[in-house]
Amino acid sequence: MTGTGAIIGATVLDGTGGEPVAGGTIVYRDGRIESTGPADQVEVPADVPVTDASGKFVIPGLLDANVHLFPQIPDYILLHRGRYEELIIEGAQLALSGGVTTVFDTCGPVDALIAARDSINRGDTIGSRMFVAGNIIGFPGPLAAEHAQHGNLLGGETLAAINADWEKGTGPDTWWLTPEHLAERVRAYIEQLDVDFIKYAASAHDTPQINYSARAQTAIIDTAHAAGLPVQAHTMSVESLRMAVEAGVDLLTHPNVTGSEPIPSETIDLIVANGIPSSANLWTERYMEFALAHWSTRRRTYYGPYVVENCRRLIEAGAELVLTTDGFIAGPRTRSHPYFSNCVPIEQAPDFPYHLGHSHLLWFEAAAEQGMTAMDALVSATQGVAKAYRKDGELGTLEPGKIADLIVLDADPLVDPRNYRRISDVVKDGRTVDLAALPQQRLASDDISV
Amino acid sequence: MTGTGAIIGATVLDGTGGEPVAGGTIVYRDGRIESTGPADQVEVPADVPVTDASGKFVIPGLLDANVHLFPQIPDYILLHRGRYEELIIEGAQLALSGGVTTVFDTCGPVDALIAARDSINRGDTIGSRMFVAGNIIGFPGPLAAEHAQHGNLLGGETLAAINADWEKGTGPDTWWLTPEHLAERVRAYIEQLDVDFIKYAASAHDTPQINYSARAQTAIIDTAHAAGLPVQAHTMSVESLRMAVEAGVDLLTHPNVTGSEPIPSETIDLIVANGIPSSANLWTERYMEFALAHWSTRRRTYYGPYVVENCRRLIEAGAELVLTTDGFIAGPRTRSHPYFSNCVPIEQAPDFPYHLGHSHLLWFEAAAEQGMTAMDALVSATQGVAKAYRKDGELGTLEPGKIADLIVLDADPLVDPRNYRRISDVVKDGRTVDLAALPQQRLASDDISV
Amino acid sequence: MTGTGAIIGATVLDGTGGEPVAGGTIVYRDGRIESTGPADQVEVPADVPVTDASGKFVIPGLLDANVHLFPQIPDYILLHRGRYEELIIEGAQLALSGGVTTVFDTCGPVDALIAARDSINRGDTIGSRMFVAGNIIGFPGPLAAEHAQHGNLLGGETLAAINADWEKGTGPDTWWLTPEHLAERVRAYIEQLDVDFIKYAASAHDTPQINYSARAQTAIIDTAHAAGLPVQAHTMSVESLRMAVEAGVDLLTHPNVTGSEPIPSETIDLIVANGIPSSANLWTERYMEFALAHWSTRRRTYYGPYVVENCRRLIEAGAELVLTTDGFIAGPRTRSHPYFSNCVPIEQAPDFPYHLGHSHLLWFEAAAEQGMTAMDALVSATQGVAKAYRKDGELGTLEPGKIADLIVLDADPLVDPRNYRRISDVVKDGRTVDLAALPQQRLASDDISV
Amino acid sequence: MTGTGAIIGATVLDGTGGEPVAGGTIVYRDGRIESTGPADQVEVPADVPVTDASGKFVIPGLLDANVHLFPQIPDYILLHRGRYEELIIEGAQLALSGGVTTVFDTCGPVDALIAARDSINRGDTIGSRMFVAGNIIGFPGPLAAEHAQHGNLLGGETLAAINADWEKGTGPDTWWLTPEHLAERVRAYIEQLDVDFIKYAASAHDTPQINYSARAQTAIIDTAHAAGLPVQAHTMSVESLRMAVEAGVDLLTHPNVTGSEPIPSETIDLIVANGIPSSANLWTERYMEFALAHWSTRRRTYYGPYVVENCRRLIEAGAELVLTTDGFIAGPRTRSHPYFSNCVPIEQAPDFPYHLGHSHLLWFEAAAEQGMTAMDALVSATQGVAKAYRKDGELGTLEPGKIADLIVLDADPLVDPRNYRRISDVVKDGRTVDLAALPQQRLASDDISV
Repeated sequence: MTGTGAIIGATVLDGTGGEPVAGGTIVYRDGRIESTGPADQVEVPADVPVTDASGKFVIPGLLDANVHLFPQIPDYILLHRGRYEELIIEGAQLALSGGVTTVFDTCGPVDALIAARDSINRGDTIGSRMFVAGNIIGFPGPLAAEHAQHGNLLGGETLAAINADWEKGTGPDTWWLTPEHLAERVRAYIEQLDVDFIKYAASAHDTPQINYSARAQTAIIDTAHAAGLPVQAHTMSVESLRMAVEAGVDLLTHPNVTGSEPIPSETIDLIVANGIPSSANLWTERYMEFALAHWSTRRRTYYGPYVVENCRRLIEAGAELVLTTDGFIAGPRTRSHPYFSNCVPIEQAPDFPYHLGHSHLLWFEAAAEQGMTAMDALVSATQGVAKAYRKDGELGTLEPGKIADLIVLDADPLVDPRNYRRISDVVKDGRTVDLAALPQQRLASDDISV
Repeated sequence: MTGTGAIIGATVLDGTGGEPVAGGTIVYRDGRIESTGPADQVEVPADVPVTDASGKFVIPGLLDANVHLFPQIPDYILLHRGRYEELIIEGAQLALSGGVTTVFDTCGPVDALIAARDSINRGDTIGSRMFVAGNIIGFPGPLAAEHAQHGNLLGGETLAAINADWEKGTGPDTWWLTPEHLAERVRAYIEQLDVDFIKYAASAHDTPQINYSARAQTAIIDTAHAAGLPVQAHTMSVESLRMAVEAGVDLLTHPNVTGSEPIPSETIDLIVANGIPSSANLWTERYMEFALAHWSTRRRTYYGPYVVENCRRLIEAGAELVLTTDGFIAGPRTRSHPYFSNCVPIEQAPDFPYHLGHSHLLWFEAAAEQGMTAMDALVSATQGVAKAYRKDGELGTLEPGKIADLIVLDADPLVDPRNYRRISDVVKDGRTVDLAALPQQRLASDDISV
Repeated sequence: MTGTGAIIGATVLDGTGGEPVAGGTIVYRDGRIESTGPADQVEVPADVPVTDASGKFVIPGLLDANVHLFPQIPDYILLHRGRYEELIIEGAQLALSGGVTTVFDTCGPVDALIAARDSINRGDTIGSRMFVAGNIIGFPGPLAAEHAQHGNLLGGETLAAINADWEKGTGPDTWWLTPEHLAERVRAYIEQLDVDFIKYAASAHDTPQINYSARAQTAIIDTAHAAGLPVQAHTMSVESLRMAVEAGVDLLTHPNVTGSEPIPSETIDLIVANGIPSSANLWTERYMEFALAHWSTRRRTYYGPYVVENCRRLIEAGAELVLTTDGFIAGPRTRSHPYFSNCVPIEQAPDFPYHLGHSHLLWFEAAAEQGMTAMDALVSATQGVAKAYRKDGELGTLEPGKIADLIVLDADPLVDPRNYRRISDVVKDGRTVDLAALPQQRLASDDISV
Repeated sequence: MTGTGAIIGATVLDGTGGEPVAGGTIVYRDGRIESTGPADQVEVPADVPVTDASGKFVIPGLLDANVHLFPQIPDYILLHRGRYEELIIEGAQLALSGGVTTVFDTCGPVDALIAARDSINRGDTIGSRMFVAGNIIGFPGPLAAEHAQHGNLLGGETLAAINADWEKGTGPDTWWLTPEHLAERVRAYIEQLDVDFIKYAASAHDTPQINYSARAQTAIIDTAHAAGLPVQAHTMSVESLRMAVEAGVDLLTHPNVTGSEPIPSETIDLIVANGIPSSANLWTERYMEFALAHWSTRRRTYYGPYVVENCRRLIEAGAELVLTTDGFIAGPRTRSHPYFSNCVPIEQAPDFPYHLGHSHLLWFEAAAEQGMTAMDALVSATQGVAKAYRKDGELGTLEPGKIADLIVLDADPLVDPRNYRRISDVVKDGRTVDLAALPQQRLASDDISV
């Protein structure tokens, strides 16, 4: 399921941050980039089909550092047991249709995620290339009391069985453990499941409480590193952020969420000095204004005061903020679900930042608003994500030997971030994607016009 | 799927209340009784396989006037969408394994119930013969707020869709209607669904509030009668009971449940004078003692004071109380479900009266305690139920032309009601049932030892 | 605490529906009207202080047929035990400040209501004259599960004790009773408490379920009538409405609320033929438009389709719709209370119809919109209410011998219903009220500008 | 309100762990011990009233290191606003009636606690001598969602106002803070309120999540120490316990509660090496057996596996476990409250360990079961607690200059721990307490027979 081809005539922005190459040529064969450069330096072999993209712009396929492909409301969880893989693929196809050729799924039902990932990687199914963490170490399953009020609807056995499918031994019972025992759990999780990276919850899901002591965090990270897996940490406060940084994580998940405190300058300095990338949620001013008017008091306290300012300061200090959406399939059932009733009314929210396959386009606009240069944004959304996950040997740039994932745009994304929306073609593994056919099935989604 | 055979040598109790015939012979062919009588008056044709049941007792197959084959907890409702028919058949097989050859299912998911009924009737599946009401007119679907506290677990669309599958246009929105409009709804329900009888809720599920005015109740009954269907009414109070009697129902569901008031004598007289049978819940003294010690205050108020005394008085006055259990598959998930947390702890309850396939055996013991003669109890459990549902042309007695449903007991049920437990054989449609093989699949049940 | 005085020069609209008397004179002494008529027919005694109201308009003090003076949210109920009387008086003063000289409180904590009523009647306290029903027969106390979801906050004893203070033996346990036993409860309630009239719930609070059979409703009414008390019925559906009418109530509470069915013409005819007045909730078009956009689906079903149309048809048919608001102190805590979260956002609602002391002014505008003549509206708001409660011997009109409750308006209320807002003076019991001083204490209210 | 007297003839156990003095004499004047020793070494001044306690045993008044005098269920909180001080004094009198002359209240409504403390200390009121922490730093107020499910009963303003009375700026919003800002909050709390010691929550109330980072915990402790106040920490897990120990707390609250992990030996060693006392909850075997059979699965996980074994190991290692109950007024409303429905049924629980005024007597029995010598137990319950709180200059032993708090027992407590129940007299501040008169008012308690 790989392809061969060449694109000529376009301005090539190769994701490394190097100078754009006008009238460049890219040749890819069997899914890998064979050669790239100015037209006069690159010869297109005779057997390669050529696309003339004169006047257009070629960028690497985008990578989203944080998505949740499975639409995690109880309705889908309960009514679609046995069909989770289909829902995940629907999500991966939505992402791909927006030019996101690779996604990093940081939380969901791990067996189905792995099955979907492998199906896509084998070429059995079209979809964004997936890397999977499975459960966030320390998070409870989706029907736990921490997430849902379930009245008397379901029996304890039912709840426990479903939660266990998510937790896989890494749920809240790990909060009790000594660092040594916690490391054993993480090791067992890695050994039993073929995950691509590890994410742990340094703090609780929705409060700044710290799930693991400094020693325990180190134990998680060391265990994952010993297995060759990069580690990221969910944090919700200045102290849990600092602890994760000091513990040595490879990637910070929404470090900009710090509630009533701004990130202390010394912590920002530490992030920059250690070169730790951040998958911070960048939200546009339009969205923030709407959200502040609609969030509950509690939510406003958590997300409101510094969520944007922290990003500006991180960017200004030179921290690397990689493309991320936290996106999910915000389809009709999800949008009207009581689960989200304390958030914004999704239908009415302008620039809603969690629409899988769409909201990454808004990220570029928010990045510009918050002080990132256009070239830095492009690099952060391509090479940056790949590096954060140690996948830059294969992904993220248009360089010979790399996987041939790329987007052809009708207009220059460096001139206006909205030009990322002007997708002409998406090529994944050297094959041009039939965007109009995605998703192939709509169990959860409807059409979000871009 | 009908059978032919003869039983000789047994004492025959034919369900009519007539004198037992010692050493009787019963011949059935192609599922129907061909002849029956003393050995010297009935000749067994040569081609008929004969079973010698000397020393045993033959009674008609039992009929349970009120069961709920589908185990109606949200867990099964949500996780087994598409498999409801299997759950229903599991229930019908449990019933059959206890000698109940015919059940009247008074509330459940109607499409699946009809499919299961037809599958059994066609002989595709083994199980108790089913007659089906579908929804109780006036009851909400199983996930309605009246039944369950669902926190924020499920979205409104999900809840509405499932409830609609149950309600089929006859849910609580009919409480608003004029009698004329209500009649239209009932008519449409009957026309669209191939139900066997109609049950309506004269009062609410769990309170004595009256769902329908006298005129509205008359409208329901007249509409069902016009379509040839018998009608029964759920009542919870002395006034809703009286109204149902005056409106002209054919069968009273648990008329003994009247909360803090005993049934007035004039109402009992009216029931007797009009010859209206009752599917009253008869509970043993052992169960009542346990229940009174474990029920919530509220439940004790509803069920406690007069639930037994009402039955005694009805029996004494000559009212006909037919065999009924309100039984369901009280399997492990059901038994531990928070739904039932305000009821008794099922595992510990002696003589728990709702075990499908088992508790009808306790009914005979309770009937004896409450003053019913042994012969009256037998007739009430056979011919009595058949008459109540106008099925006595085919079911309920061991008379020529009737369907060959019968039970061979090892001991005389007139001597001791516990002898109903001593089942030697169950014959349905003239075929001997392989009791050990039932149920063929256990999705919801486990083994309740009889 | 009664007063003496005379008003001259004003146009007098005496509440009987008779022709306005320009330049009329009204003389009142010791709180009663002594004489009234054209200036040339009525002499003002020398000892009587005279107010020249030339150019102004005098109408009887308004009577509101349905208020809830106690602000019935759990916060006040729980935190202000022992101070209920103060809250009620605050409500009675708000009403008076809007020209409502008499209110009929149809539901609240009866001991405190009676204490407040007697304090006002004795002249110890200023406030609108109160008549009191206490509990609505058949309604649970305010902390019952029917009203509130209380989680695990309060123990059963606490809930039961508070609810009992409201129910006084007439709560939902009466739903179980035979008509005879129900009558005993009502009789005991009347004997123990010095209430002025009886209100019963023919249907549930928020559903169309019928609380009492036809016989039981008759028993309530006959018992109250035997004690000399008029009876009104809360109804929520076409059938509960018809039953109440047939049972012989003296006043119908919001008969226009009939959910998904319009009132059948035959029921309207019956209401008119029997001359039964209605305290229907008349809402302005502005409010209805807002409400329909904000109500939950459920609420829209209940109130939406016919609530206005029913009023129009009642008015057109000649039914008498008397002034009513169902008003309460919609102060800051009430307005933001989760109790009301399924209703409209009160702060934003135009023409919110439940503001005690204010919303009765909107009633006149709604009445005009829905087809009532200006003179009929005035009579309905004065003599009409008095007649409905059999108080027209003393209240409701400006006739000799009547209590001297009146309003002086700056502009003609027959010309524009908004002129009811232009209050110059309110006289109660012959004494001019210091409107600016009301309420004397604000425990629950804030200022609603008229 | 201090007294003067002498006791002669009794065996004196002075709380220091020294040898019992048979036939000892104790002289106290104006509430302080003047002299003590063998009869032949101590002369009783002529003006001092003498009590002959021959054959009896004198011990210091007991000190309970952890009580909650205010019965913290929402019913009292809501219905008794303004009467909290009365409820607290009722608790202090219950404690005193059981021989507990000093209590350390570690969580409650601080203003009322301080008022009650000062009233007792001034001698205006009789009761156990109180020391007060107020809020546990990091705990929410009692009506927070963490504690109670409140449905829609109360409005947000009401909840916030009550919670704020408890939190006083040290609630869960401090979880967000940098160590520096947290220190400011603690400093403000100490400056504004006259508390006697500080307690902070190293972990959450009912989960092992960590509220504060190591740096933040150090900030709390340093701030309190700078103000001269001792500090204790609530912990719920092995890691939060270790962090508190390493941060330098003066007292550990229930360090034996560590859920699914036993305390690591290195942590026990650290506790012993640093000499940090523990107010561990010691429960009798009878109670534990009952509790394990009745706790919810979750609670069993939290408290079950190691709660006793941890204590045994701490005792064996030489850690000091001081007398503590966590006691409250477990009166009728509390015992039946849904708040506690996931705990044991209090009425049926043998040796229920939280009865204020009673359960400290069970502590001695549990201590014996778990390996503490009789003399160590006595010292731990007297001098031990005083030292833990740095009050051993005045309290905890029968030495000259100390406050004259003592108990006269009828039998030797070193022989049988049940002999602590055989109280003959309690002397506080040199005055003999009228035990039969306590409590002087029963708002919340009923009689727990000892």
